[in-house]
Amino acid sequence: MSETIAETIAAMARAAKKASVAVACAEAARKTEVLERLAASLLARRAEIQAENRKDLEAARAAGLPPAMIDRLTLSDAVFSSMARGLREVARAPDPVGRLGPEVVRPNGLRVRRMRIPLGVIGIIYESRPNVTVDAAGLCLKAGNAVILRGGSEALHSNRALAAVIAEGLAASGLPPEAVQVVPMRDRAAVLALLQQERAIDLIIPRGGEDLIGFVVAHSRIPILKHDRGVCHVYVDEGADLEQAEAICLNAKVQRPGVCNAMETLLVHRAEAPRFLPRMAERFAAAGVELRGCPETLRFVPGAVPATEKDWPAEYLDLILAVKVVAGLEEAMAHIAAYGSHHTEAILTRDPQRAQRFLREVDASVVLVNASTRFNDGGELGLGAEIGISTSKLHAYGPMGVDELTTSKFVVYGEGQVRS
Amino acid sequence: MSETIAETIAAMARAAKKASVAVACAEAARKTEVLERLAASLLARRAEIQAENRKDLEAARAAGLPPAMIDRLTLSDAVFSSMARGLREVARAPDPVGRLGPEVVRPNGLRVRRMRIPLGVIGIIYESRPNVTVDAAGLCLKAGNAVILRGGSEALHSNRALAAVIAEGLAASGLPPEAVQVVPMRDRAAVLALLQQERAIDLIIPRGGEDLIGFVVAHSRIPILKHDRGVCHVYVDEGADLEQAEAICLNAKVQRPGVCNAMETLLVHRAEAPRFLPRMAERFAAAGVELRGCPETLRFVPGAVPATEKDWPAEYLDLILAVKVVAGLEEAMAHIAAYGSHHTEAILTRDPQRAQRFLREVDASVVLVNASTRFNDGGELGLGAEIGISTSKLHAYGPMGVDELTTSKFVVYGEGQVRS
Repeated sequence: MSETIAETIAAMARAAKKASVAVACAEAARKTEVLERLAASLLARRAEIQAENRKDLEAARAAGLPPAMIDRLTLSDAVFSSMARGLREVARAPDPVGRLGPEVVRPNGLRVRRMRIPLGVIGIIYESRPNVTVDAAGLCLKAGNAVILRGGSEALHSNRALAAVIAEGLAASGLPPEAVQVVPMRDRAAVLALLQQERAIDLIIPRGGEDLIGFVVAHSRIPILKHDRGVCHVYVDEGADLEQAEAICLNAKVQRPGVCNAMETLLVHRAEAPRFLPRMAERFAAAGVELRGCPETLRFVPGAVPATEKDWPAEYLDLILAVKVVAGLEEAMAHIAAYGSHHTEAILTRDPQRAQRFLREVDASVVLVNASTRFNDGGELGLGAEIGISTSKLHAYGPMGVDELTTSKFVVYGEGQVRS
Repeated sequence: MSETIAETIAAMARAAKKASVAVACAEAARKTEVLERLAASLLARRAEIQAENRKDLEAARAAGLPPAMIDRLTLSDAVFSSMARGLREVARAPDPVGRLGPEVVRPNGLRVRRMRIPLGVIGIIYESRPNVTVDAAGLCLKAGNAVILRGGSEALHSNRALAAVIAEGLAASGLPPEAVQVVPMRDRAAVLALLQQERAIDLIIPRGGEDLIGFVVAHSRIPILKHDRGVCHVYVDEGADLEQAEAICLNAKVQRPGVCNAMETLLVHRAEAPRFLPRMAERFAAAGVELRGCPETLRFVPGAVPATEKDWPAEYLDLILAVKVVAGLEEAMAHIAAYGSHHTEAILTRDPQRAQRFLREVDASVVLVNASTRFNDGGELGLGAEIGISTSKLHAYGPMGVDELTTSKFVVYGEGQVRS
């Protein structure tokens, strides 16, 4: 059985590699056409896909999955609209493939440029949400790549139905249907087999919890871009605009607490703590946020829970916030270096020097001055749709849009030059 | 014992990570100063380092290493001059760290830029040549990174002596000496331990033979940039300038046959084979090149050895060349796709359409028209000194210079923006 899985996956990978050549060479207009067509087909065949989705939902309810998981699994009408809108936005975005960088003429007359090209075949391993199947397929195709998708096992009926519609759309546009494939089995052995196809697959993007990412890191022979956890801080500096700070901190924590760019720890300069913390605590209390404070915080917020060492590295993804009073920028940056996850860090300050030091020295994919951590997002930063947020530094650090699903090669024009 | 090795390596990695913060924040002038200082120290202490190098050379001779290996191991006066010159060139090159990309102003007023930053800690695993210790240290420091170097075990005395001089130079410039460390033991267990330090090391660059690279790919938990093998082709198209083609093919094969960007297979259009191959074969014969030809090649070059299936994927690194007659561009590109190693591919043609198709469709880090494959080199393509040539697509594809040893983060200036 396990051998059969390995063979199936290896065959899928070979087919993807073959298909990737056709997608890589497809004209921009062809790709736009296929993405528009997919948007239309998804809407036209919504009922049929939703029928498959209901099978997943029934199984999930029978297995006693929590309501939040059921919610993420549901392909509602609103999710369909959002998938179709996403595909159309990607369709209309500029095509990166074939884009040339500036020409450099070498002393011997060689003319050298970089040309943006697709990565080849991308494997995406994700949990639960079936709309990722469509979003990811759209971005990968736009960037000229083939893609193999391995969604959550509880979404398999939904993902297969979506993949079938995508494959038909590809074929109708004259592109190989193998350019988008969904792994058709639930076994974890399939993931393992996928991670060994280093001759056919150029990049693996895991999206999910720590278990999934740890498994992928441990077993992959293929380069990885991790969409990892976010332990994001906001540091309220001495002299910050406290009214603005309240609004930003509230937004960073409560606007959508379950996502990776929500604030998990608030750092407050000692000089501002007596004025800022009591007012801020009131607003957090009104929003239902539980505060876990250092001893100094507790003096100004008597209702807070005493924080333990476990709170500083925690990614709560919930209405819980760790709070620490610090002596200044140095201590704030040292705390972030010790406990941050290189995701998103913000300083709220009126001092340009300290803003500059924070921007320059804090090691995170997105560093902000006087704005909410929630802006670490491809759409918000102007990249268009994103396939995830990378917290590892190679290739892409931060939100990954269509451009980050490409690479570049050197193209060189000569007139008979040889090397001496 | 193996536990001691693991502990030593883990301690080195932690020290490197700590040191990397200071190097990342070092001003450009400080880095220039330290690189100039290292160049001077190496020349001043040449005799002392060469005495250590002699220990390695004596051991290598006693172990019966081949003359080519002994040659690569030797730190001659010429190698010292070249190391010092390399450091000074890197010192004077533009500093990439802190460089800002164009500003994008979002509809909500957020100002977004990308800032180039160091990768952090780089591990380099290489074989034999001790000058790599100096070249790599210089490039990594320039890019603001700390580095851990694991050279060939037969070069350990030399590498330690070089590292001691580098550490003193760092300290004299006020930078932590742990920014450049050499793994002090010969055991392979040390490499394995290095590959597990994913919390401290951001990138591993393996440079060496297939065994080394295979081992690193199989065991690393850290992202890798491979400097891998080069199976490079030159395709002589119908209507090519045959005189120019002769000069380019000769250069690509014989100017330095032992390097990765030398031509290993020559593809010739059927229409040109009768005129081109006999003349080319004569020139190759005069240069001592053994030809291994397809059946059609043998008709025009009776002295050639019949090629077998083993010849097409071969990286000879020697005065041997596989030769194949093809029906045209399609067959040439299919052959390259089947047997090439994504390193360097060249077309010799007068036809702009076919040149364009080759440039666009051939998947290699460097693709050339009417020039020798030997130009796949950081210096030749205008990147300055290179740390290797990547044949994997993530992060860098092709020669890797100082810029490729950095990444970028997003810096965002707000005025109180929150997300709605």
